[in-house]
Amino acid sequence: LRNGKIDQFRAEFLELHPYDQARIFEELEESLRQEIYMYVSPEEMADVMEHVDDEEVEPYFSEMDPRFASDVFAEMSSDDAVDIMNQLDKDKVASFLTIMEQEDAQEIKDLLHYEEKTAGSIMTTEYVSLKASMKVQEAMNHLRTEAPDAETIYYTYVVDEDKRLVGVISLRDLIISEPEWTIEEAMSDRVVSVSVAKDQEEIAQMMRDYDFLALPVVDFQDHLLGIITVDDIMDVMDEEASDDYSKLAAISDVDGPNDNAFTSAKKRLPWLIILLFLGSLTASLISQFEEQLNQVAILAIFIPLIAGMAGNTGTQALAVAVRGIATGEIRKQGKVRMMFREASTGLITGVVCGLIIMGIVYVWQGNFFLGVLVGISIMSALIVATIAGSFVPLIMDRLNIDPAVASGPFITTINDLISILIYFGMASAFMNLLV
Amino acid sequence: LRNGKIDQFRAEFLELHPYDQARIFEELEESLRQEIYMYVSPEEMADVMEHVDDEEVEPYFSEMDPRFASDVFAEMSSDDAVDIMNQLDKDKVASFLTIMEQEDAQEIKDLLHYEEKTAGSIMTTEYVSLKASMKVQEAMNHLRTEAPDAETIYYTYVVDEDKRLVGVISLRDLIISEPEWTIEEAMSDRVVSVSVAKDQEEIAQMMRDYDFLALPVVDFQDHLLGIITVDDIMDVMDEEASDDYSKLAAISDVDGPNDNAFTSAKKRLPWLIILLFLGSLTASLISQFEEQLNQVAILAIFIPLIAGMAGNTGTQALAVAVRGIATGEIRKQGKVRMMFREASTGLITGVVCGLIIMGIVYVWQGNFFLGVLVGISIMSALIVATIAGSFVPLIMDRLNIDPAVASGPFITTINDLISILIYFGMASAFMNLLV
Repeated sequence: LRNGKIDQFRAEFLELHPYDQARIFEELEESLRQEIYMYVSPEEMADVMEHVDDEEVEPYFSEMDPRFASDVFAEMSSDDAVDIMNQLDKDKVASFLTIMEQEDAQEIKDLLHYEEKTAGSIMTTEYVSLKASMKVQEAMNHLRTEAPDAETIYYTYVVDEDKRLVGVISLRDLIISEPEWTIEEAMSDRVVSVSVAKDQEEIAQMMRDYDFLALPVVDFQDHLLGIITVDDIMDVMDEEASDDYSKLAAISDVDGPNDNAFTSAKKRLPWLIILLFLGSLTASLISQFEEQLNQVAILAIFIPLIAGMAGNTGTQALAVAVRGIATGEIRKQGKVRMMFREASTGLITGVVCGLIIMGIVYVWQGNFFLGVLVGISIMSALIVATIAGSFVPLIMDRLNIDPAVASGPFITTINDLISILIYFGMASAFMNLLV
Repeated sequence: LRNGKIDQFRAEFLELHPYDQARIFEELEESLRQEIYMYVSPEEMADVMEHVDDEEVEPYFSEMDPRFASDVFAEMSSDDAVDIMNQLDKDKVASFLTIMEQEDAQEIKDLLHYEEKTAGSIMTTEYVSLKASMKVQEAMNHLRTEAPDAETIYYTYVVDEDKRLVGVISLRDLIISEPEWTIEEAMSDRVVSVSVAKDQEEIAQMMRDYDFLALPVVDFQDHLLGIITVDDIMDVMDEEASDDYSKLAAISDVDGPNDNAFTSAKKRLPWLIILLFLGSLTASLISQFEEQLNQVAILAIFIPLIAGMAGNTGTQALAVAVRGIATGEIRKQGKVRMMFREASTGLITGVVCGLIIMGIVYVWQGNFFLGVLVGISIMSALIVATIAGSFVPLIMDRLNIDPAVASGPFITTINDLISILIYFGMASAFMNLLV
């Protein structure tokens, strides 16, 4: 395909959607990529780069001619350019910015200042705004000329003389308005905006709940700074979901299709080693009860069952709490109500599971007291574990730590400890009934 | 506010965004809700109902006058009406449909046929389509009149005389085209469509990757049946993420802010009881090694540590595999490569953790052979558990079972079993070195 036939390749390649171009591009060897850099314009390359995963884009920009690379950045949406630059090392970014034209460079520099995961870092500055005093007819003409460079023209924000946000008008409303009206008459002044420092997860919630296609971003004096479009928010939703999910499983990052075994191991080992030390604590706890174990070795049989059940129910309570915090549901209802509900849920599940296992153990081992001991241990362990599973993330949220860090395995390991303490505590108290 | 002052309440309430109206509405007591039903139009009520959680909407429709309720359904977007009807019981739905006007009822009936979670069930039939032979000017006029009833007019799909999908034109392109062109000249014929039976998760991936605001849904002969808009897809993304997340924690449904303790317990108990039986299997496995435990009671100390580590690493591998299957990444790369990578990752993490724990046990217990035993057990358990964590979901995917069902606690419990077998197996083999 691409041995010589440049025109044909260009024609076919550029017909594709940039997402597909990016997939093909990633499959190529470096020498072929170099040819592509020669035969496509920076603008065309920018489209491709916007559809490559941010974390994998670094080598491509390193192998490009720096002049070409900085042209590509200049042609990209400013928000996408910034996302990629956040992945590159600082010296390289600085050198691209110096080659770039003043105006483009300034735009990107401004965006690079905003903290990651805030409105400022995901907004784009390529938007069209209208003045309140314009006529509808004028506004349509303005949109027609600006359309090719803007991220969206379906929602246009209206500003006053001081660039303060005063309204919003959809293209839909614009085309059904009379041409001689002013924008002020045609627009809606109930415009919802977000502050530049707002967290991206909250913005995603808002856009989903209110079905917005775009949201204006303002500073503290209500000056319009940029807009966030729904396509960026879909990426945010995916990122946040994947984040919560990874943390529940205690891995730093679940998305790594191109990782090799070493990279995967590097992502998982830190958690495993921490858990290994926590697990050693459990072991040393049990060793305190060596005497009881020597007397009634059968006690050991139920250790994994009790610890496991406490871990399972803790993970369930944790997942509900973390999700509730993430969606803001818990703040609405109050934490006390949530805790009370979890305690009651723990009580119900504990009693049910406790009775079942009591029956199983009694029938299986023919030892009534052992059945009661295991049953009551499971019951207490489930109650405590359920409360711990919901309490720990709530406290972390209070301390402004991301509650998802209290991930599944941590809660599980903590609940292992608690449940074994309960089990052996009871066993030693009623030793005389067991022997 | 609402004791008598109906006009004022109407004015203030209806100024709000329907999402906020829904939040207020949900807080009211039944008597106040009844007043609202009297003072708002079915159309206004439809907007509110579209923003209430589908699972909580049932009581409201039951308490409404059936005539009013069916008018509300008729005014809703057909896709939202169907989502809600899927939550109501069949007799009630049938009675609403009989009161409704023929045309609206037919539209909803058609949609009710589609299987849940497919394109058919999330698409809306309120769209505008254009004929390829229309002039741009005509098309603009057509859009102006149809705009109020359509879900979106930003992307309009173009059909031929047989209602077959032949192209797409964005409002953006429409306003920059010359009025006397035909749609056929102005449109793009590279239109991406989805079949009515396609899974909603795949559609969400597509819309995110290609940054679409809308997608046309077609039948097997390419006839345009409906469209899917980005706001529906955001709900799908949330639902799917929450689904994967719930399953990783083994709860049927994580979203239940208004659940009481009994409902919560009912969602969690089935899983806990199944896990209780699986846990009893582990217990009965250990009981096979009672003799060894009687000889070396200290063996029991390390049971939770070994089982716990196997569970943790299994959960990590599981999360990566489930996510990889969900995003389609694994299908791209091939399962064999994935399995090979997981096995290598298991080997690396196993060796590292095994060596660490060997050191800890040796220093702590002063028993070299015990250290070696625990170390080698952890090493083998991690390798096997990592492979199991990724293998089980792959097999389930092959058997067309949703791999997320192999949720965290299941893998954990299975890995408990395997790791304990390894541990006691080795302990009995080398008993003479330990005693």
